[in-house]
Amino acid sequence: MEKIEIIPLGGIGEFGMNCMGIRYGDEMIVVDAGMGFPEETPFGVDISIPNFDFLEEYRDDLTALILTHGHEDHIGALPYFLKKFNLPVYGSRFTLALAEKRLEEHDLLDSVLLHRVEANDVVEIGSFKIEFIHASHSLVDCFSLAIKTPIGTLIHTGDYKIDDQPVIGKPYDLKTLAKYGDEGVLVLLSDSTNATVAGRTPSEQAVIPAFEEIFAQAAGRIFVATFSSSMHRLQVAFDVAKAFDKKVCVLGRSMEKNVEIAAEHGLLVIPYNTLVALGESRGLPDDEIVYLVTGSQGESRAALANLANGSYKGMEIEKGDTVLLSARIIPGNERAISQLIGNLYKRGANIIEEKRRLIHVSGHASQEDIRIMTETARPKYVVPIHGEYWMLFRHKEFIKNHIEGYSDENVILIENGDTLEIDEFGARISAHSDLEKTFIDQAALDEIDYDIVRERKKLGFSGMISLVVTIDKDTKQLKQEPQITVQGVAGIDPLNGLLETARESIADAVAAMKREEFINKNGAKESLRVHLKRFIQKETGTKPVIVPTIVEV
Amino acid sequence: MEKIEIIPLGGIGEFGMNCMGIRYGDEMIVVDAGMGFPEETPFGVDISIPNFDFLEEYRDDLTALILTHGHEDHIGALPYFLKKFNLPVYGSRFTLALAEKRLEEHDLLDSVLLHRVEANDVVEIGSFKIEFIHASHSLVDCFSLAIKTPIGTLIHTGDYKIDDQPVIGKPYDLKTLAKYGDEGVLVLLSDSTNATVAGRTPSEQAVIPAFEEIFAQAAGRIFVATFSSSMHRLQVAFDVAKAFDKKVCVLGRSMEKNVEIAAEHGLLVIPYNTLVALGESRGLPDDEIVYLVTGSQGESRAALANLANGSYKGMEIEKGDTVLLSARIIPGNERAISQLIGNLYKRGANIIEEKRRLIHVSGHASQEDIRIMTETARPKYVVPIHGEYWMLFRHKEFIKNHIEGYSDENVILIENGDTLEIDEFGARISAHSDLEKTFIDQAALDEIDYDIVRERKKLGFSGMISLVVTIDKDTKQLKQEPQITVQGVAGIDPLNGLLETARESIADAVAAMKREEFINKNGAKESLRVHLKRFIQKETGTKPVIVPTIVEV
Repeated sequence: MEKIEIIPLGGIGEFGMNCMGIRYGDEMIVVDAGMGFPEETPFGVDISIPNFDFLEEYRDDLTALILTHGHEDHIGALPYFLKKFNLPVYGSRFTLALAEKRLEEHDLLDSVLLHRVEANDVVEIGSFKIEFIHASHSLVDCFSLAIKTPIGTLIHTGDYKIDDQPVIGKPYDLKTLAKYGDEGVLVLLSDSTNATVAGRTPSEQAVIPAFEEIFAQAAGRIFVATFSSSMHRLQVAFDVAKAFDKKVCVLGRSMEKNVEIAAEHGLLVIPYNTLVALGESRGLPDDEIVYLVTGSQGESRAALANLANGSYKGMEIEKGDTVLLSARIIPGNERAISQLIGNLYKRGANIIEEKRRLIHVSGHASQEDIRIMTETARPKYVVPIHGEYWMLFRHKEFIKNHIEGYSDENVILIENGDTLEIDEFGARISAHSDLEKTFIDQAALDEIDYDIVRERKKLGFSGMISLVVTIDKDTKQLKQEPQITVQGVAGIDPLNGLLETARESIADAVAAMKREEFINKNGAKESLRVHLKRFIQKETGTKPVIVPTIVEV
Repeated sequence: MEKIEIIPLGGIGEFGMNCMGIRYGDEMIVVDAGMGFPEETPFGVDISIPNFDFLEEYRDDLTALILTHGHEDHIGALPYFLKKFNLPVYGSRFTLALAEKRLEEHDLLDSVLLHRVEANDVVEIGSFKIEFIHASHSLVDCFSLAIKTPIGTLIHTGDYKIDDQPVIGKPYDLKTLAKYGDEGVLVLLSDSTNATVAGRTPSEQAVIPAFEEIFAQAAGRIFVATFSSSMHRLQVAFDVAKAFDKKVCVLGRSMEKNVEIAAEHGLLVIPYNTLVALGESRGLPDDEIVYLVTGSQGESRAALANLANGSYKGMEIEKGDTVLLSARIIPGNERAISQLIGNLYKRGANIIEEKRRLIHVSGHASQEDIRIMTETARPKYVVPIHGEYWMLFRHKEFIKNHIEGYSDENVILIENGDTLEIDEFGARISAHSDLEKTFIDQAALDEIDYDIVRERKKLGFSGMISLVVTIDKDTKQLKQEPQITVQGVAGIDPLNGLLETARESIADAVAAMKREEFINKNGAKESLRVHLKRFIQKETGTKPVIVPTIVEV
């Protein structure tokens, strides 16, 4: 008896790390391999990836990796995935162009097979027949997937909104979706990012009037800060700049790179004689230049932050400049953004935030978009994906309460590591594995064991003390004064004599230890560690990491 | 020629750490001594305080510390202030009751002089004559201050909103304020926390209808999560519980403590036979109990988080429970709260957030409250205080654009460390000192040098390696294999032989060093440190802290 198994590795109950295995018989495809943005950045870890080792069990079944679109939370873990499972990769031209940049950094470009597909292409991968459905989103060249299996069709929405009039490209391809709806859809795997938001998500064109008014009124330079992947927004900035006879200059590495790639692929259309280099831009009158800049999230090393503190190639935001923050605030960045805005105000700039003017729209489906998606696909089962748990939950509530024919039984909440099994008798979670995230060390660009991060957290929280005890190899008596080195510990300073007392205390402890205790050197080190730990805790209240070394001579 | 000097030590351009010196001639009073909440918590630092050392210059001038109200961002640094400057402290009964708890923790209770004052008390402190004006806020027993000096009156609003019908106590005392307005106010130091919000801040009573509906509808237990200092909210919960014949049980240490203190002072009125202990609460039917709990910000150790993960004294949130999140989200807590809500949904609880129902109102003045304040006090100068820079800026914009008689000249933006000098000729910033914050080590409960925090950050970011090299004291040749201990470093594991190679490399380095180089032991250690650092960086890409020790035998 055949069945489909849906196995999310990431992106369920969290923002980022989108990745899902879909299995039929002994074949499995994987949709997306995204990265996450952990809170461990102070500990040298700024990327997390799904626990791909979990897929070892299915190694022989794996046939292909399908990418819905090029955002980091969908392709950022690609190199780490391909190092473990070198599958053929399917994606749009633009998605793969972005992916190639990542693969280059990891020297993988020559060893992987990339299949460029276009909207409405159908590829057969074993028992799976996959059609790529053109999807509208904040990025371009994005897909939803129709995945046909012998026992039913799955629709994976990817990230999407139902944009009837995007700035770049066509509207969401509801016609193809409806074709599948008519044929019968078994499962809809559906984006939940904006499932808590009522109404329709406005079209990417919705920002044009505010851009036009702001560009018309600004007497000085204009800085538009947005995500470097927000292609529709960049196109609007170029188009409106052109309409008002302004030139455009792109600042910030990721922005320059993305503009270049998108323009190469004809996705971003740079109006004739509009783009200028930084040098040329400086020579222009203030009211004739628009800068597109990175750093809308207050990132300390991005162009906008540097422009706000005067460290961007000698250029700085000045009185008379207008700054558009044309992006939403990603939770967690509030403090940095508030700091940034303060700095911009101090420089006398006019700040325009998305809260006050319609200069930003979301790229994700709101509730009425979700209604269109669900009512067009008319799936037997809906499985909310992409979002924190409370968003998935609200997605379910919305569908249950507002779309006819859906109830607790056919809107199914799953978690990372679940196996959702679907066959002719129904749908059930048949297995669950607790999947720990995998973390990537920022400097080593490689996986890092979480135990190492835990050690870093301890070191960072209270500092460390290195203790070196030199003893006679025969008598096990102290040969010289213990050496203590302190890093990051509170309550110890050269003046309060604490180190002196600590050395004496350690000397006493060594003297009191029996000769036999030193036979097990690790045991002896542990005794000294505990002794010094207690001493320091008693004297200072703190619990630094103690690193003991015994030298026997 | 006499002048007033206004010297903010904290709270300007930041949330928290409110503290301001006000000087006339050679006398200075200080208003509030608040703590801040730095981002360095992963590094054992969860409190920051103003740089009180800056006041050393004025030591002989200091006469009194005046507290506006009992929130942590106004009194939390009190012990650290009083250890440096043991001034008499003036505050309301409730403010001082909260302050006493803090002083107790620092064993200071017997050595400080606390003056309890009531609304409309006037105290003379040298040339200052201070009237305490009853202010409405989310807390109770709060004051604005009218500070009379020989050359003019200052109004310091403290934290406030213009609440015409608070749940506890009287409305904001506009009458007294108006009296000063009529006499003439020189400077209004005015709360900016909500200066970006249009309209009036709703009264604390505004939440009652939603509470009533929710309490009426809930079939199971009710959990109200709010700040333990939100006294009006707690009173509403008690009153509405009583009206619906429910008992109330208080969970979480700070909540229990604050309820006790407020009830003792008659500020919180616990309805007869309503409060029950945890044990008794367990025996009640689900629809007869309301729990007031801490943890509205998703704090991992607070009652609500523990109830959501089943670790609160054997009690847990269950299907059928209703949870009210009756507090705003403090920026930075979004992730933790979203996690918390997800966990509560998983347990089957009904979650009610302030975004969806009117179960929370701010304690701070919105723009139309600010209008009332400003038009009643009619000051010559307005100085926005309490808030991030962009809020102060918007406060100024609002007053300039919407209140007659104010312009760039008489709404003055200042920063921490500025001296704002005001005399008959006008107002000017006459001096500025860059004030670094002071940080408090969480474990040592004492000031910590920021250099130590910097060391912790380095340790936490990439880990550490202890290197012990034992050499002959005469020949300076290696006596035994170097000992290396690793903590929190990526890319090193027992299997890849890197430690072995590192030891060999160090041995080579020691052999290559000249005998004379070891005469300066610190220089020799530094050479070895740099050698190992480069080796590790080359091999792993990471830059751990290297802690070298040389043992000479």
